[in-house]
Order: sequence, then C-alpha cells, then structure tokens
Amino acid sequence: MTEPLRRSALLTDLYELTMAAAYFENNVQASASFELFVRQLPAERGYLLAAGLEQALEFLEAVRFTPDEIDFLRRQEVFGRVGDAFFDYLREFRFTGEVWAIPEGSPVFADEPLLRVNAPIIEAQVVETCLLSSLTFQTLVATKAARVVEAAGGRGVVEFGTRRAHGPEAGTLAARAAYLGGCIGTSNVEAGFRFGIPTYGTLAHSFVMAYDDEGESFRQFSRIFPDHAILLIDTYDTLAAVDKIIRLGLRPRGVRLDSGDLVTLSKAVRHKLDHAGLTETRIFASGDLNEYTIADALKAGAAVDFFGVGTELATSKDVPALGTVYKLVQLNEGGASRSRAKFSEDKRTYPGCKQVFRFHDGNGLYSRDIIGLLEEDYPDGEPLLRCVMRGGRRTEAAPALVQVRERAREKLSLLPAPYRQLRSAPPYPVRPSPALEALLEEVRHRVLLPAAGEVAD
Amino acid sequence: MTEPLRRSALLTDLYELTMAAAYFENNVQASASFELFVRQLPAERGYLLAAGLEQALEFLEAVRFTPDEIDFLRRQEVFGRVGDAFFDYLREFRFTGEVWAIPEGSPVFADEPLLRVNAPIIEAQVVETCLLSSLTFQTLVATKAARVVEAAGGRGVVEFGTRRAHGPEAGTLAARAAYLGGCIGTSNVEAGFRFGIPTYGTLAHSFVMAYDDEGESFRQFSRIFPDHAILLIDTYDTLAAVDKIIRLGLRPRGVRLDSGDLVTLSKAVRHKLDHAGLTETRIFASGDLNEYTIADALKAGAAVDFFGVGTELATSKDVPALGTVYKLVQLNEGGASRSRAKFSEDKRTYPGCKQVFRFHDGNGLYSRDIIGLLEEDYPDGEPLLRCVMRGGRRTEAAPALVQVRERAREKLSLLPAPYRQLRSAPPYPVRPSPALEALLEEVRHRVLLPAAGEVAD
Repeated sequence: MTEPLRRSALLTDLYELTMAAAYFENNVQASASFELFVRQLPAERGYLLAAGLEQALEFLEAVRFTPDEIDFLRRQEVFGRVGDAFFDYLREFRFTGEVWAIPEGSPVFADEPLLRVNAPIIEAQVVETCLLSSLTFQTLVATKAARVVEAAGGRGVVEFGTRRAHGPEAGTLAARAAYLGGCIGTSNVEAGFRFGIPTYGTLAHSFVMAYDDEGESFRQFSRIFPDHAILLIDTYDTLAAVDKIIRLGLRPRGVRLDSGDLVTLSKAVRHKLDHAGLTETRIFASGDLNEYTIADALKAGAAVDFFGVGTELATSKDVPALGTVYKLVQLNEGGASRSRAKFSEDKRTYPGCKQVFRFHDGNGLYSRDIIGLLEEDYPDGEPLLRCVMRGGRRTEAAPALVQVRERAREKLSLLPAPYRQLRSAPPYPVRPSPALEALLEEVRHRVLLPAAGEVAD
Repeated sequence: MTEPLRRSALLTDLYELTMAAAYFENNVQASASFELFVRQLPAERGYLLAAGLEQALEFLEAVRFTPDEIDFLRRQEVFGRVGDAFFDYLREFRFTGEVWAIPEGSPVFADEPLLRVNAPIIEAQVVETCLLSSLTFQTLVATKAARVVEAAGGRGVVEFGTRRAHGPEAGTLAARAAYLGGCIGTSNVEAGFRFGIPTYGTLAHSFVMAYDDEGESFRQFSRIFPDHAILLIDTYDTLAAVDKIIRLGLRPRGVRLDSGDLVTLSKAVRHKLDHAGLTETRIFASGDLNEYTIADALKAGAAVDFFGVGTELATSKDVPALGTVYKLVQLNEGGASRSRAKFSEDKRTYPGCKQVFRFHDGNGLYSRDIIGLLEEDYPDGEPLLRCVMRGGRRTEAAPALVQVRERAREKLSLLPAPYRQLRSAPPYPVRPSPALEALLEEVRHRVLLPAAGEVAD
C-alpha cells in the first residue's frame, strides 16, 4: 500500500477559500451540484479517453487541512475579518458528498460531464482545483497514448517520458495514464511500484561511453542481464555496433535505435541481425516519436518491433492542455432545487444534473450520444455516469489498473474507426436531449429577462 | 518548514537501475561528470530563464530507497541474476557528489550546462530522471512567465493555472516558477504556504450563480471582504453587472472580466467606473490569455490593470517541452580522467567539464557567451556555473524565493531587448572556446577512428 499522492486541501485556488468563507459567514447552507466537462475537443482529437478518476477519488477521501495550514490561512490579510468559527470549520473539514462519474477508460466527448459532485457548496468548491488538475492531465495523456498505440498497429509502445514531464509527479501520473491508454508499460520505476505497471528499460548512451570500447560495454551489460539486455546501438555508428554484437556472439533480447533515419537504419539492422541468425532479437525505436512519425515510419516499412515514446506522450505535446471546466448546475436549499447555467457571451453552460446516454448501431458499435437530464430514461441508451462515491466514501473498491486498461481497449474498439483517425476525424454525434434544451430555455428566461429589465431601467 | 516534495529514488527510469546494477556487479568504481543542458532553443524562445534548481538540490539531499522499494526491485524479474550485495548497497544509497549549477533566475541558452554532477557513476545515473524533470519544467514556466510579464508592460500578472496544470504537483511548481519569472503571485494556496508566494483570488461564476440575484452575490462577498473583493462581472451581462455595483454603492478593489472582447469591454467598464467615481477600482482580465493576446490587447488600448494567466502559463502551452539532456562528459578512474562525447548523427555532445563565460558590452548589457573548459580563464567573462553542493550537502543555504525573483528581474534587464522580443528574436551569440573545440576533436579521434578501423576489418 502506498499513501495517496495528495491530501492537502490547500491545493486549491485562493478564491475557493474566500468563497467558502463568504458562504460560511453568510450562513449559506445550500448543497450544490457541479459538473466537470470539456468545453470543446481540440482540433487534433476525435475523442478523449477518460482517466484520472482514481486519483481524484483518493484525494476526496483523504482531503484535510492540517493545523499548520489553518494557521497559515488565518495569518493571510485577506481573511482578516473572517471569524474563528470558519477556521474551526476548516479543522473538521471532510468531503462528505456524492460523486457520479464516467468510468476511467471510456471514450468521451465535448460537453459530456466526466464527473458530478453533489455536496455542501463549500466542500464542492474547495475540491474543484484538484479535481480539475487530476482528471484533465491523465485524460490528455491517456488519449495521446491511445492514439500512439493505434498508430503502432499492434507493436508494443512503452512510455519513456518522465524526464520531460511537468515535474516528477506528472511523470508518474503520465505513466499511469499511458498504460491505461494502451501502452505495455513504462520506464518509470515509481509508477511500477505505485501502480503495478510493467517497467521496461534499455541502456543509456552514458553506459556505452563509460567503457573505452563499445563492444565491451555490450558484453558487460549482457553478462548481468542475459535475458533482458536491450543494447543501445547509436552512440557512435549504428551499423558498426550491430557488427560488434554479432562478432562478440551476443544474443541480446533487443537493440535500440535512438537517432538517424529510422526506416533505413531499422531495415539495415534487421537484415544484419537476421543474416547472423539473431532473428529473435527485437528492434526498439525511440527518439522524439509520436503517433504521426510512427505511422509514417511503419508505412515506409520500418522494421521496428517496439516503440519507446517519451516527451510527446508525457506532455501530450501537440495538445498540452484541455479546456476542462467545473460548473455549478444545480442548487438545493431548504428542500427546493434550482437549476443553474451561465450565459457569458462565449461560454454558455447547460443547467441541471445530467446523464450521458450512449447508443449502439446494429453491429454493437457506438453510433451517437445524448446528453439528457439524470431522470430521463432512454431504454436503448447506455447511461455512462455511475455513482462512485456516497457520503465521502467510495461505493466500491477501486478496480485494478490492468482492468481499467482492458476496459479502455474494449470500449475504444467499439468506437467506429473514422473517429479514431489520427487526422481530421469527423465529429462524433452528441446532442442535448429535448428536455435539457427546454431546461436551458427555462433558466435563461428566469435569469436573463429580469437582468435585461434592470439594464433598461 | 515543509517536507521535500520528493525523496524516493524510485522516481527514476528502470535503465538507471539496471545500469547501476551492471556497474556494481562489474565493479566499476569510476566517478563521472554529467552535464544537463538544452540542445536547442525552441523557435519561439530567444532565451530560457533557469529555474528548478532548488527542488533538484532538495531531492539530492533527501534521496533514499525505502525497504519496501528495495523489496519491490528485488522481486522484478530483470534483477533475477543480481546478487544481494547490490540491494544492500541500495539500502545505504545516498547522493554524496558535487554539483555545479547556474543559479536560478539566470537567462541561459542552448548547449550551456545548467547543472553538472560530479559523483560516483551509479549515484550520478540514478538521480538523472528527477534532475531533468525538476529543471526542465520550472525553466519552461519561468521563461513563459518572463515573456508574459514583459508583454504586460508593468501591469501585474497573477498565475492562475493549477487547475489545468499537469497534475496537482505541477500546479504548485508552476506557481513557483511563474513567481520567479516575474509574476506578482499565484492563486495556488499550497504554493503560498510552501514557498511564501503572495496569493490572489477573485470570485468564481458559481458564487454569482449561487444567489438568485447577481447584485446580492456582490453585496454578500463585499461585506466579508471589504478591502479585497474583486468581483467577477461576466456571468450574465458584463456592463449590466457594473451598473449593479454602482447602484448598490459598492467600492470593490477590482472587477474581473473573463470573457467577451477584452478591449471594448475593458474600456466601457473603465468609463462606467470612472464616471461613478470608482477610479480606484482596478480591472482584472483573465480567460485564455498569453503574451501575444496581452500585447495585442494593450496595443489596442485595453484598460486592464492586472492579468490572470492560467493554462498558457502553467503548461507553457505553446512550448510544453524542452529538449533537455543529461550527458556523460568526463570519467575519472584510478586517478586518470578522460573526456567523453557522443557522435550520433544528429545528437553530438561536447566533452569535458565546462564553464560558461558571459561577456558584457560597454553599457553593462550581455553581449555574448563562451562555453569553455572549467579550467579556462577569461578575465572579462563572468563565470556562470558555481559549486552549489559538495559531499551531498549544499555549500550554502537556499536563497529566499523573493531574492531569486529579484535576481531574475535584474539579469533579464541586462539581456538586450532584441533577445527578449516575443517573436523572431535573433539568436544570442554563444560559441564554444577554441580549447573546447580542440578537446572535441581529440575525443573524436580517440573514439571514432578505432571504431572505423574495426568496421573496415
């Protein structure tokens, strides 16, 4: 067992705490529903693969303010007029709410709630920042991984990117999301320890350079790791390195190419290896790879068995951010419940607690989604959001990561191929239900007409 | 005092540990020098602002393998033939080496070592991954922050991006780097607690939406935070919201615009506020801003006093990764020291332990850098790398972050304006010294000629 990565409630934006103080001081007792969703898919993505829920739930179960943290807050000038009772409240702060979510490993689209929190409004607000950063990042990387794995057409992809990730923790979370998205493993040992992900490693240029002779470095490494050695062959001259391996009579599990023209070199290396009877020696490729370069290299006949993908995967380099938001959709106070929506010029949100219904075609493939109200019922539509936490405790134990990965593989295979295209995927059909549209209109009337009246004053 | 963010030695790539085992089993006693540098500046950056050294040093002082972690490694199939002595070694593993580095807050360029580790080769190798991810990410964000601050032309910039950062830790590290790079503060409260960074907050749309009447939400918030309230005015109708503030007789510290046309709206809001005598009420702008949109808005006359920059800053969105590497440059064994270099087709490295010498023009501004050997001496050149750790302990206490921020401000002001241009900055002149060039040739002869000879065999 490992500790949760995160439990401090201070991992939040200051306004969550000032709003909390204002609600507390004004005795606002409402419970609120917030939904987390992506406003728009990036142009380069036909779908997103939901990930990060596990770390979000872990955080919700563990979240606390320590006494030191509360003292810190008390000393901040902004809280100068806030009374002791609020800080006493923070001392006992726990997340006691309910969470609905689409399971990790599900393909999702714009406007679909990935998660809904129903909780006293202060609790729902304080956890916003951490929920957003947990789900956004892993969803980005899991999606990128699914694309890279698709491009590799059945060849194994290993995540290699911790060194270029946005700090050490981001590296470990990226490894998790990449595995979930279909990678066969990671180079990150902490991710192996913490999440049970298979770990892979080869050899660095420094090891080759630490010996006066390249062949000697290969011989020494192979002696210690006779069944696992993947020798790095591009430190000086790639083809000469293969000749050395053959001359020394080594039978490495693999060789790794990290520079040069992948197509030409991999074919030449394969030819030399096969000619020497090393048909079992696999070829690993690495070096600034992504889904596009992998697809192109394979199309041109590159003789690669495994890909190591680092920077591009761990930072989701072409799409390093997602427009995820966490919006108030309903407020329950004194037995009455009112739907909420926002009508800023360019940032409208849909009100009410929602459910996503997914429909299948005659072959069992996904055909369209309807975003409806939670209480709606579509007998042919699969409801995607499930209640995963009640009273601040999970409703069921966390699934093993390997099961989540299997779910992702299965669900992705139900998404018709055009939506999985690397480039110019058509938009998957997602529509609000008539009932949701009607609710939006109702809220618009209630909220905007009086405002317009006031302006006309 | 807070705990180091990171101390587990497992935050490393598997090959670092397999190489460590191979060195150990082969009784390689060498001490090695590795240098960390950026191969190439991204096209959109004229310079980088070094950051993240503090977290790297904290990690080096704290790094350990726990007994659980060692048991985990022992169970991995790849280590099946590795003897007990290696795992006993890991139990006592500490970083005992020396570190040279360019101080945080210094402008740096491609090929310049940001950091050098001199240590027993196993130690130098095990810490590679964490050093790279610590320095790369903060350097990216500090650089982005410096650009945004430059674009804002003296107006305050607050970092708002934790929710969109690559996980929660990345958000906190981004806040640190952004402050170092010139932001006046962050919304991230943990960053305030941990690093003493000023925290800023406003109000979310949800707070406005939680009340039936927008004006009532403003009134309630202003009552609790009379001197600090920054009211969010774009939930329904921006200009109508300003009218409500005026009619209610509120005197908020500021108002925030988060959507709509920034130039037109900010001017109209300023006009209304001034007309009502609210000349002290400041205008905050947020909403997918970056250095380019800020520069354009100000050029078009936007009446903005403070900018909140989130996603673009915390992910360095246009340049979310840097090609940082950590390369073996020298090996010392049995009293002899040998320089090392790599000659892969597209990834050459310079051998030897280096120093960066920075030259100033007649006005004291930076004019050019020479990357030379450590033992060289340029009386007019300022040597940038300093010894910051010896025997695994810092040579001096960590400077306060506010001092590092001040150093960054001062050093950036010495970089001539063309290199700080947001677009199409010319390349700052950096050249290797003749002695370094000569060493490269010498190593090339030693390493490549015999290899070529072997191939000709």
